[in-house]
Amino acid sequence: MQLYTYFRSSAAYRVRIALNLKGLTAEHIPVHLLKDGGQQHGESYRSLNPQELVPTLVDGPHALTQSLAICEYLDECHPQPPLLPGDAAQRAHIRAIALSIACDIHPVNNLRILQYLSNTLKVSDAQKTDWYLHWLRLGLDALETQIAPQAGCCCVGDQPTLADLCLIPQLYNARRYQLDPAQHWPTLARIEQHCLSLPAFHDAAPEQQADAA
Amino acid sequence: MQLYTYFRSSAAYRVRIALNLKGLTAEHIPVHLLKDGGQQHGESYRSLNPQELVPTLVDGPHALTQSLAICEYLDECHPQPPLLPGDAAQRAHIRAIALSIACDIHPVNNLRILQYLSNTLKVSDAQKTDWYLHWLRLGLDALETQIAPQAGCCCVGDQPTLADLCLIPQLYNARRYQLDPAQHWPTLARIEQHCLSLPAFHDAAPEQQADAA
Repeated sequence: MQLYTYFRSSAAYRVRIALNLKGLTAEHIPVHLLKDGGQQHGESYRSLNPQELVPTLVDGPHALTQSLAICEYLDECHPQPPLLPGDAAQRAHIRAIALSIACDIHPVNNLRILQYLSNTLKVSDAQKTDWYLHWLRLGLDALETQIAPQAGCCCVGDQPTLADLCLIPQLYNARRYQLDPAQHWPTLARIEQHCLSLPAFHDAAPEQQADAA
Repeated sequence: MQLYTYFRSSAAYRVRIALNLKGLTAEHIPVHLLKDGGQQHGESYRSLNPQELVPTLVDGPHALTQSLAICEYLDECHPQPPLLPGDAAQRAHIRAIALSIACDIHPVNNLRILQYLSNTLKVSDAQKTDWYLHWLRLGLDALETQIAPQAGCCCVGDQPTLADLCLIPQLYNARRYQLDPAQHWPTLARIEQHCLSLPAFHDAAPEQQADAA
């Protein structure tokens, strides 16, 4: 397998964690989102992923896109340890947590949106930061409320699931914007501390990647 | 089951299609996104869905959030007809299509974002329309490329899947902004025409809902 990845991409970070949890290795092919006007827009990458977003996982003849679709694929092909344990209701709860980050926080704050705010709408840097923090806080505040009742060491129970794969990269982003999770979201911060103690999460972190600046 | 829905919400529209395809009925409880400052922000709805977004599906003791998590739940509890047919690679392809809409088009253009652009960033109506059309076109252009090789009557094969549940509501939004799918995305337009001929899709459309204006 080959993983087209960028060290700081939250979406690629999710897939790196999933691969590690499953004990799988993939050759990492870096796609630098800022160099050369964004390597994700280059012709060769676009032929693999018409959306021009990372990550892409190539497995034999299949070029798989969208991080959550890739994680579900890995979970179906390599069921242990399960990323979606439990009955249908618990699986729905895990997916809802993952999607609340992957749909309603991350895409609203990703690079191309911030570039559009600056380059096309000409908003100031301060307004851009306010935008980022607004959606991040709104999403994580709701998540703190939603997660608390069923959380264990991880978002749902004591083993990492698809929910944790999304949460940890999002909290990494919060730290980049000087938000200390422990000050705002005690349950999320506790889960982060636990997950980062696990090699699968630690080794997937941006600063551990060969393409980190 | 009770479905908290708003007639024009794309996310609620997806779940309405899924329920119809499965032959299930749910009591519809309207949540008006514009009246009363947005009924989704009211205390009673927030206690059900801390994210203050529609839809929510209540099934016995479970309040399920996030449209794609709800659709996967319905598919696990009621497997026929399958929303995710085929092997792991095909299921990944179906999920990738669904997520490319649910993550990378819809949340960037939803009501709260447009409200923030107007109310906080004070962008003009023309700039707001440009924003909407920019992300819509970017996403659907990529999707046309990505879908074409494996499309049948539907996005993947000849039976509706999770991908079509996301595509049809998104094309409804495109039409609201005066974009004719046939002029821009021939494959998507052909799939739309087929799906809208099916009662499950027709009956889920915004204009068929009791809460339509």
